[in-house]
Amino acid sequence: MPTLLHLDSSADLAASRSRALTAVFADAWRARGADHTVTYRDLHVHPLPHLEASALHWPAAERRPGADVPAGSQELLQSVVDELLAADVLLVGAPLYNYSLPSTLKTWIDRVHLPGVLVPDAGSTGPLAGRPAVVVVTRGGAYDAGTPTEGWDHGTPVLELILGTALGMDVHTVTASTTLAETVPALAPYRERARAEFAEAERELARLGGSLG
Amino acid sequence: MPTLLHLDSSADLAASRSRALTAVFADAWRARGADHTVTYRDLHVHPLPHLEASALHWPAAERRPGADVPAGSQELLQSVVDELLAADVLLVGAPLYNYSLPSTLKTWIDRVHLPGVLVPDAGSTGPLAGRPAVVVVTRGGAYDAGTPTEGWDHGTPVLELILGTALGMDVHTVTASTTLAETVPALAPYRERARAEFAEAERELARLGGSLG
Repeated sequence: MPTLLHLDSSADLAASRSRALTAVFADAWRARGADHTVTYRDLHVHPLPHLEASALHWPAAERRPGADVPAGSQELLQSVVDELLAADVLLVGAPLYNYSLPSTLKTWIDRVHLPGVLVPDAGSTGPLAGRPAVVVVTRGGAYDAGTPTEGWDHGTPVLELILGTALGMDVHTVTASTTLAETVPALAPYRERARAEFAEAERELARLGGSLG
Repeated sequence: MPTLLHLDSSADLAASRSRALTAVFADAWRARGADHTVTYRDLHVHPLPHLEASALHWPAAERRPGADVPAGSQELLQSVVDELLAADVLLVGAPLYNYSLPSTLKTWIDRVHLPGVLVPDAGSTGPLAGRPAVVVVTRGGAYDAGTPTEGWDHGTPVLELILGTALGMDVHTVTASTTLAETVPALAPYRERARAEFAEAERELARLGGSLG
């Protein structure tokens, strides 16, 4: 049974653009048949706690002797790791908040960027190598090359580094920019572009949801 | 009474390098006299909740009509804003976790990057303009120019964008890299460098703590 792990992290339950886009992918996935299951984790509605102790950045065997790990924290981390390992495809909704990841999504990243467990040791292949990850990035503004805000998106590269470079997943990033064009007057000149980018992201996610995994 | 707002966010209460370095600054500040007070917020021990709703990214007057803001969330946000406004100098301990800010520090950033309140409207000057902010970044590895990890630090630029570019504060970034050299065997070749960088950061923070504000 092909399993999709679908994560949302938007703090907007009414009009989120990232939630709308991940839903397009998930719908296309489900449309492939009753065997295409979805595990859904809403990191905003049911947030993970902040990483309980820095020792949890390492697997148990590599922690500093005597490192204090609060009761239950290792089990929670393991459940997040197991959920990812059980997924054939990962889908992440990642709105850019203040030039970086939502704190709710960061708490998930902190639990899966685990050396020796999900991040392979040098020269070896990790358990997630080659598995598809679809990263849906929505950004309120424009971050175009050659403009003053080029390089101000510090969310996308973190997801690509962790999921792609570190975990070895096959990352497909789908981005919709200027999503605040409808509501922020200063961004009104971007309205047409915003609609076009969003529609293109919908098309791409319908295609990926119908074919990946 | 000159007031320092001192934030720590390390998830390590035993051997944190960022906590050790912010303490150097705070000690130098206190040594200037009994009138040099410190407001301390430990974002790991007493974490702020994740931003409760995306509407809180905007001041009340600019929120979408009908936007849902959970009870108490505006008051909490305002208390964080007021605490920053009351500070003559800001000190932030910011360990780099998985190439980005700790989620605990992100929850603070999400509450102070507030258009029209702390971020000035175009053409005007914000209430924090020119006020000193000392950002202490500790990074486990090396992120040197010309190496494969150049540009992988996506924590420092976010703090500099929000505190400096957006809020107009006078940001002093003090960085200690390769802080994991003592404990991670693969980083052992960096041990001497790590000690030198840490000692230099201590000197710089003692100097800044003795003079800023």
